[in-house]
This record gives sequence, C-alpha cells and structure tokens, in this order.
Amino acid sequence: MHVDIGNALAEVATPGVSEAALERLDAEVADAHETIAAGMSNAVFGYASLNLPETTSASGIERAVADVDADAVLTVGIGGSALGARTVTAALGEPEHYVLDNVDPEHATRLLDSLDLPRTAVNVVSRSGTTAETLANFLVVREAYEDAGVDWTERTAVTTGETGPLADLADAEDLPTLAVPEGVPGRFSALSAVGLVPAAILGHDAEAVLAGAREARDTLSGSLFDCPAYAYGAVAVALERRGAHTNAFVPYAEALEPFAEWFAQLWAESLGKEGQGQTPARALGATDQHSQLQLYRAGRHDKVVTLLRATERDDRAIPDTDVEGLAYLGDATLGELLDAEFEATEASLAAARQPNVRVEVERVDARGVGDLLFSFEAACVLAGELMGVETFTQPAVEWGKNAARGLLGAGETEEAAAVRGKREYRIE
Amino acid sequence: MHVDIGNALAEVATPGVSEAALERLDAEVADAHETIAAGMSNAVFGYASLNLPETTSASGIERAVADVDADAVLTVGIGGSALGARTVTAALGEPEHYVLDNVDPEHATRLLDSLDLPRTAVNVVSRSGTTAETLANFLVVREAYEDAGVDWTERTAVTTGETGPLADLADAEDLPTLAVPEGVPGRFSALSAVGLVPAAILGHDAEAVLAGAREARDTLSGSLFDCPAYAYGAVAVALERRGAHTNAFVPYAEALEPFAEWFAQLWAESLGKEGQGQTPARALGATDQHSQLQLYRAGRHDKVVTLLRATERDDRAIPDTDVEGLAYLGDATLGELLDAEFEATEASLAAARQPNVRVEVERVDARGVGDLLFSFEAACVLAGELMGVETFTQPAVEWGKNAARGLLGAGETEEAAAVRGKREYRIE
Repeated sequence: MHVDIGNALAEVATPGVSEAALERLDAEVADAHETIAAGMSNAVFGYASLNLPETTSASGIERAVADVDADAVLTVGIGGSALGARTVTAALGEPEHYVLDNVDPEHATRLLDSLDLPRTAVNVVSRSGTTAETLANFLVVREAYEDAGVDWTERTAVTTGETGPLADLADAEDLPTLAVPEGVPGRFSALSAVGLVPAAILGHDAEAVLAGAREARDTLSGSLFDCPAYAYGAVAVALERRGAHTNAFVPYAEALEPFAEWFAQLWAESLGKEGQGQTPARALGATDQHSQLQLYRAGRHDKVVTLLRATERDDRAIPDTDVEGLAYLGDATLGELLDAEFEATEASLAAARQPNVRVEVERVDARGVGDLLFSFEAACVLAGELMGVETFTQPAVEWGKNAARGLLGAGETEEAAAVRGKREYRIE
Repeated sequence: MHVDIGNALAEVATPGVSEAALERLDAEVADAHETIAAGMSNAVFGYASLNLPETTSASGIERAVADVDADAVLTVGIGGSALGARTVTAALGEPEHYVLDNVDPEHATRLLDSLDLPRTAVNVVSRSGTTAETLANFLVVREAYEDAGVDWTERTAVTTGETGPLADLADAEDLPTLAVPEGVPGRFSALSAVGLVPAAILGHDAEAVLAGAREARDTLSGSLFDCPAYAYGAVAVALERRGAHTNAFVPYAEALEPFAEWFAQLWAESLGKEGQGQTPARALGATDQHSQLQLYRAGRHDKVVTLLRATERDDRAIPDTDVEGLAYLGDATLGELLDAEFEATEASLAAARQPNVRVEVERVDARGVGDLLFSFEAACVLAGELMGVETFTQPAVEWGKNAARGLLGAGETEEAAAVRGKREYRIE
C-alpha cells in the first residue's frame, strides 16, 4: 500500500498539516511504535492482532473445512464476525458468499428462499457463542435446512471461542470447528479463521491474503515517513486534531465496497471514545461523485476524504461511438475513465482546500486485500495510541445490549426501564 | 410517516432544541412553507418536484414499457438517475433489478457475465443524454448484448430529456422513451419515470408508490407540529445550527438500505453549500450497532442519529432452543428482536445525551416507499429554505467534470492542468 499525503499539507488544504508539524508528529509516532512493537512481542490483548499474518495457518483452515463440499457459503455472524469475511470474498470477486448479519425477518426469508441449500455451506461465527443476533439467525437457518430436508450438520462450520454454547454444539454434532484467536477483538480478526473460512471453503488462496498482510507488516517502523500505514494513521489524527471530524472513505472499486464497511467499524468502534473519533462516512467512487462531492467540496472544512484505488486492473474498452459530444471517450477504457475521475475528484477537493489522502494498492486481489486489511489495522492502532484511547474495547455498546435483553424478557434491567420511560414527542 | 422528536429536545440531548426554540422555529417554517407552496403552484424549478405525485402518470409509464418483455432489468444511470429506481425496487422486495452506476471495468464485466441477457431489459437514464459514465456504460452494455447475439433494441427503454444523443438514439431505434420531467433535478426525480420504470417493467404497482407520496403531500402545512416531513427537516436544521454536523441515517430494514443511499445524495447535494450541510453517514440497523454505535454514543456530540423503521412486517419466529443463556429468545420473533434493538439503541443514545429522531412508516412496501421518498424530499426542501441555500443546484461538481473531460482528451482545461500539478508527497 502506498499513501500520498500531499493534499493533506497545510500549503494545500484547510485544515492541513505543515511539514514542521509532521516532523513533530513523527516523534509521537516513534513512541507509539515502541508501545505497539512491545505489545506485539508480548501478544498483549489487541496488539496481538498484528501478529495474525504470522500466527494464522491458512493450511490449517483449509484442512479444517476440506470436507465441506459447497458452491456457496452463508455466513451467520454480525459486526467483526461478518465484515472481514465479506471484505475478503468481495475483493476476490467471489459472488457466492452470502451474509446474514441482521435480524430483519423479511430479509432472512428472502435470502433463505433464494439459496440452493443443498449446495450452500453455513459458516457460523461468534466468539462467545451467545451473540443474540447470530444465535437467533442460526436457529432460523437450521430450521430452514431441516424444513428443506437438507442435513445442516454435514455442511456447517463453526468459528468460536474455546467454550460456550456454539463450541458445545460443534462438539455434539462433530462439526468442523475453528478457533477465534486469543487476544484479538472481533474487528481486528479478519486475518484469522474469522475472515478466511468462507474464502477457503470456496477454494480461494487464503495464504495469499496472509502473504499480502505480511508484506504490510514488514513496513512497520518507527517513522511515519517510512511506513504507509503509520503515515495514514498519523495524518488522520493530525487532521482530526485540526477539525477533520469526519473521515469520508471512498474506494474507487466496487469490490472494495465491503472494505469501506469494514473500515467504518474498525475506525468508529476503536477510536470513537471520550468525545473523540472521526465519523466514518462510506461512499463509493466514481458513483458518489454524483451524490456526495458537492458537500465534500462546498460544505464545512470538517472532513478528510480518503481516496482509495488499485493501480492495476482488468480493463475494458469503451466501444467507439458516433455520438457527438462523446467522441472524447472513444479511445478510452472504463478504467481510464475511472482513473480520470479519481484524479479529477482529488484535485477538485484540493482546489477547494478540502484535505484528502490518496491510498493505492496494486490490485484488488488476495494479496491486495491482505495488505489493506493489515495496513488499516496498523493505522488504527497507531491512531489510538496518538489519541490516548483504549483502542481494543467497546464499552459504550453494553448499555444497549442490556436494554434489549431486558425488553425481550431476560429479566428487568435498569436500561430496559429507561427505554420504557422514553420522552415522546410525536408528529403524526 | 410519523416522526418522534422527543430525543432531540434540549431536556434529553446535547445539542438539543428547547420547546420554546421549536415554537420560534415554527414561524420560520410558516414562511418557508409559503415559498414552497408558491413554488409548487407555479411549477418553479425544483419546487416542481413536489408536484410529481400528481403529475406523474403510472399508467402512462406502464403503457410505454408494456412491450418490454423481461424478468430482470439492468439500469444504466448514475446518481439521481439510479438511486431512486433502486430504492423503489428494493422496498418492493424485487431482487431482479441490477444497476450499473459506476465505471469499474471489473465490476461491469462480472455483472454482465452474470446476467441472462435475453431475459434482461436495459433501462438507460440520463437527462442530458451525455453523462459520461452512463453513456460509456451503455456502449459497453450494447456491445455485450451484440456479442451474445441478443437484440438490445427489443429490450431497451430510454428515459431522457427532449433533446440530446439519447433522445436521438431512441428515435432512430424506435425505443420506448420516457421523459425526464421538467423542472425536477435528478435527485428529486424518483417519483417520475426516472424512478418507476424498472418497477413497472417488472410488473409492480407504480401507482401505489405515487399514492403513498400523495398521502405525504397532503400533510404539508404551515406548521412543523402538523407535518412529519417538516418536523424532520426543521429539527435537523435546528440541530445542525447547534452543532450536529453529521446526520447518521440508520434504517432498521435491509430493504431500506438503498433508501439510505438515496437520502445521502438528497441531503448532501441539496444542502452541502456555502460551508453548511450535514454530512450523511449511512448505516444499517441492527447490524451497525456492532460497528458504529460505540462512536455514536461515546464520540463527539456533533451528530443527529435518524432511526427509521416500519411498524408492521412479515415476521418470523425464532425456533425454540435448549441453549442455556438464549432461552430468553425462545418466545420471540426476529422482528421483536429487531424492535427491541431499535428501541434499546434509541434509548442508549438518549442516555448518552446524543440527539436522535425516530421515523416510522407502516410497512416497507410500495405505499410506504412513496411516502418516505416524498416526505424526505419535502423535509429537504424545507431545510434548504431554513438554511438559505440553493437547494436544487450542485455547482461544486462542475470543476471535477471539466477536469475529467480534459484528462480524457476533450481539450486541455484549466482544471486538467491543476490535476497534473498535484502536490505529491508519497510514503512508499
């Protein structure tokens, strides 16, 4: 991964970072890197995530699911138990990975009705084995297989912690079982079985994903000037300190749309703490130039726009046309059009002094997505250090979980009582 | 559509709006409504959009495409020429509407390879008939049909302005042609042929969409206290004035995910002007509780969270389980779980004094999506009046268009030269 921070400099953008400020920031990066490197060495909770490219065994995952014979995979998980896996298969161009990561009954019914169940493997993922949405969906999926006369036990793989209801179930039914790695929060687990099982079941090269991640890991160093991942994380924090409270994340590749969703969780849940944290706003290039660009150029100067693209791709020529006014497209390819729009958008933001950062990978493929996943995790860990937040926890979501449990009759909770006391002000 | 603004009140949230401030705001709403009503009466550019539920003829659209015999539709358009149509078919639960609204060559190839072209209609949409992305894609699509030996002229419908290359083409090939309505910007055109053709080709009830929109139009009045759409728009502006610079838009229904994208264009492109405008951050409930909620609760108080749900749906029981710790789910349905999470999230935001607004429709169906589309358009027009911006233009996107044209060889432009002068600062 390469990063170009030219359009985040104070000479170009407002807010922007001066070169002198970057030098000062680099001293902070050096300190943060020491903490991170020590955390990796000692496999400290959270920091251990950055060891996954080394500690995950692709062949081990492939062996575990070798007997799962399927043309499609249905992942049942939510948050970090789904986004990483979907990111990987999307980048691989794999269309037969479906995800049930919501508890919307109409959607569940439509999805299950559309699948060829005898040819579809089920991939259930929950560290605790008790995640309400995941277990509820799994019960629904199991029933759908049974109703269709299809034996789910022959085509289900489980990724979970060492103990818990899912581990017990996998044991009782003799299901292939993969471990959620120790010391790794869900949103940092894409480079483990949590993110790689669907790709492995569908015959993709999981090892290549890890190899791409290892290349990124080898760039980690004590200076933002030598490490693209740290450069991204450091500049994002520097801009946030100067008022860029939103990170508009815009991949110019449809196959990276799930990566933008994965980034949104990583960034929001890791850094959204103590009144800090950039709000990730997901978009897609070039499509959303026709949707968000007006605001990004002419709105407040409270955003950094992250523009992400691949520098190589399978291109496709635009056929010649005799349509007047379009002749200029005639010699171009779709890829050249996409690149022209990328660079035009980048420059148009700079012309409005709106800060933006260019991120490039060679290709959207197994290696490329491994590189991106690791690099943005490292960027996020660095950002957390610079911001002084607890990167690896998510304490603010517990309140809602307690409330939902209470509402569903698991016993009255203080939080459920607060839900019932809502201040209503309805406009009919 | 109903709106509950209780959690946007100053007694609950920071920022928040006091009841006294709401009363003062209502005087501004009354003035704005006069402008809007006059604009509608005189079919003034932009305001004319709010007449579409009356002026669009569903039967006219249905007649125009009656001879297009297809099981699937491929829409070729971008921005407002695609998002509305996709929003409508998604809300109708129609899986056979595909959209080519990007110029990503790998995606175009994958999509075209996956379609059964003899059974797929093509729906090309561009007001000017010269939109670069749309015409480039249409040329690619045409070639794919020809390569497959399928006559595209028998299954293509065109929606465009009165003149232009697409109108000429439709004339030459005798294609069904629908008019982009006069005085209606793309992002406000969902309730016209621009948004309804794919649904009509696939046999859905376009008239029911318009009927839902008419119900919403009948609520327009001079007071936010009597009109849910105006209540939403007014409270959003009041919160923006008090620092809520992001609008996190969270439907709790997978079938409304495209609606959130449509909203993001509407809000960003209409209101993102002169250093103003909320940044739309799209999310999806309940899924993104496991992604964004940590930030929304514990981050800056610079957001309003819009929580949208249907109050009726086709539900699905969660099968009984003997799994310990999940017994509390046993008597519930997926819908009850979803509602519990909706209300828990809403209350958890309020407990953190983060402002949020509840929006409800009866069902996600033709009537419901018509209601939502019209209501949010009206909310946006009102917001634009209160903010004093030019709601119906998007001047900031021209710079990038000129740059891209220059880069592709349509003749050197000042903007293209600026692209070539980029300030580089690469971290390798």
